[in-house]
Amino acid sequence: MNNFEFYNPTRIIFGEGSIAKLKKLIPRKARVLLLYGGGSIKKNGVYLQVADALRKHELFEFGGIEPNPDYATLMKAVKLVKKNQIDFLLAVGGGSVIDGTKFIAAAAHYQGEDPWDIIAQGLGSGLKKAIPFAAVLTLPATGSEMNRNSVISHREKGQKMSFGSEKVFPKFSILDPKVTYSLPQKQIRNGLVDAYVHILEQYMTYPVGAIVQDRQAEGLLMAIHDMAPTALQMDPPDYVARANYMWVCTNALNHLIGVGVPQDWSTHGIGHSLTALYGLDHAESLAVVLPWLLWYKRDQKQEKLYQYGYRVLNQKMQKYSERIDRTIEALSAFFHSVGMPTTLTAYGLDPDKVAKEVKAHLEAENFTRGEHRDITATEAAEILRLSR
Amino acid sequence: MNNFEFYNPTRIIFGEGSIAKLKKLIPRKARVLLLYGGGSIKKNGVYLQVADALRKHELFEFGGIEPNPDYATLMKAVKLVKKNQIDFLLAVGGGSVIDGTKFIAAAAHYQGEDPWDIIAQGLGSGLKKAIPFAAVLTLPATGSEMNRNSVISHREKGQKMSFGSEKVFPKFSILDPKVTYSLPQKQIRNGLVDAYVHILEQYMTYPVGAIVQDRQAEGLLMAIHDMAPTALQMDPPDYVARANYMWVCTNALNHLIGVGVPQDWSTHGIGHSLTALYGLDHAESLAVVLPWLLWYKRDQKQEKLYQYGYRVLNQKMQKYSERIDRTIEALSAFFHSVGMPTTLTAYGLDPDKVAKEVKAHLEAENFTRGEHRDITATEAAEILRLSR
Repeated sequence: MNNFEFYNPTRIIFGEGSIAKLKKLIPRKARVLLLYGGGSIKKNGVYLQVADALRKHELFEFGGIEPNPDYATLMKAVKLVKKNQIDFLLAVGGGSVIDGTKFIAAAAHYQGEDPWDIIAQGLGSGLKKAIPFAAVLTLPATGSEMNRNSVISHREKGQKMSFGSEKVFPKFSILDPKVTYSLPQKQIRNGLVDAYVHILEQYMTYPVGAIVQDRQAEGLLMAIHDMAPTALQMDPPDYVARANYMWVCTNALNHLIGVGVPQDWSTHGIGHSLTALYGLDHAESLAVVLPWLLWYKRDQKQEKLYQYGYRVLNQKMQKYSERIDRTIEALSAFFHSVGMPTTLTAYGLDPDKVAKEVKAHLEAENFTRGEHRDITATEAAEILRLSR
Repeated sequence: MNNFEFYNPTRIIFGEGSIAKLKKLIPRKARVLLLYGGGSIKKNGVYLQVADALRKHELFEFGGIEPNPDYATLMKAVKLVKKNQIDFLLAVGGGSVIDGTKFIAAAAHYQGEDPWDIIAQGLGSGLKKAIPFAAVLTLPATGSEMNRNSVISHREKGQKMSFGSEKVFPKFSILDPKVTYSLPQKQIRNGLVDAYVHILEQYMTYPVGAIVQDRQAEGLLMAIHDMAPTALQMDPPDYVARANYMWVCTNALNHLIGVGVPQDWSTHGIGHSLTALYGLDHAESLAVVLPWLLWYKRDQKQEKLYQYGYRVLNQKMQKYSERIDRTIEALSAFFHSVGMPTTLTAYGLDPDKVAKEVKAHLEAENFTRGEHRDITATEAAEILRLSR
């Protein structure tokens, strides 16, 4: 096990009816800016619940934070924060709104010239101060409600980058499984796959004797297998399955299973290009990369593939190489079982053409990922060519 | 899944060589009181490492915190804290030293007449303030290094009680697996069993659809099965196994697997009496109770026993009742495999006599435990009579 530091001070308030607790959780005298996305919270009743809980607070609003939140949009919110002396932010939404709020919280106190430097110059880790904020999660997937990370796009510069800082842990996050009842099934499918891949990015590398983290990660993967079919049920939705879906997404990326172990994250890196170039949903982009990346890296990853297959996917045949084949097939089969395609061709894309275009895209950003830092644009292209 | 709140702000610094980081972790101007137990840290090199890291800090010392830390001892430390305007406590030890430090931290700021009221009157949950403190863990077992709980004995009153408060989370805890190298094998055996029982106290109740917590708990149990034989190895000790032993003890009782589920804790309650009356080590007392408690409560706990047997202990035979029998036997066999007896008779104690004496002891404190609050002194006696 590698040496590590673990720290996560976010308070989680979980369960049906939790939104009403906002009233006591946010300081009575705070000037609160409510941040949200495309307005779905005004249709599904979440906005009303939040507004009701905060009816005695001084409340401002900023809507329109887009998926893959854009720097320009967020800077408008920063302006609003400064103009109105906002001292508490409340993100009501999914990963994009929460990630965006993390950036707003940091940028509002940034003293330098260009707040994009927090990300581009890697100043996040040295952040001294940020506006305190909290989240009401409406779309379980990214884990942003209980971690220190944020991914922001700068459309004008054509960049999508991340930063992390202990100053941008949410003070608290409210997780009410009932808010998932109005989500389209596709979003739930995406959330399940996103969480699953988050776990594998921290697990599927090489063994370092992290027995505890391995068992924790495998437990979360098995939990997803347990709950996925019922979590996808729409009419009526199943509270227990939705609660587990919500909680597993948080646990998949709250730093706990990732401490003391090598991490990969190349599937995410390659996937980001697919989203940027072809508009695939984030989770869709992961599912057309991961099985082929595992195939391509099966030698380097063989010990963990073997362990994952045996413990999580019940692949117990004798022959080592066969077990790895069946494991990768079983992973793809799981994705298919939740309605998620695993090939570029399923989206009508030509793998050879995509490989070429993504290669150019990744070369431009000097892409280097993977637990051995050996997945560059060239390897990414080879992986994508397999996705058929 | 039941509604819940999760919050754990303790920072963990994990790995070989971590003690040296104390220098930067404790504010340079703090007046630090170093707290420890019987002095083993002066023999095994831990004291020297701590003193070296803090050689530029203003350092005071208080040794002699006994196992099952006593109110009278701790109040001497409180006096020292006040006299020397101590503003940071550093517990260097195992669960007793850390639990004791939590009480000192709370008592030093207590405004009422009798600080024992923090515990006896249940004032812990309303604590407004405590002295900040941290821990250097030397004996992995109780999980106190990353939770908000503390068990204190009041020998004069013949009481052993607990309190909990968010104000007594350690600010940080240093976990260096190498400090376990000087532990006697019996202590490691005890730590493994203590952690194992902590997990089962939070798991072995009845199902509430907490798929994630169940899988997390099962993962930790399996991790203990994986590592136990190697963690017990003495000559030479195995770093990887000791690291996992240390980390699993923390995860067994850091609140994460216990949120949203019913909990039992009757094995601990009955065990406390056995320690008080017959001097059994805490972990020893747990192991002579738990298998018999599961036997006694096998109907109420059947669904979780079944699941635990199937998933953790590989009990997959067809017949339901047989599977539960084999599961309880396999749990006992695991305890035996680490050198831990599971009967009162193994200690030369007469179960009938013990049952009678413990019954009187528990009646005096109106004992009521268990996930259904139906284990009283009477049931405890019946359980102990089986322990032969």
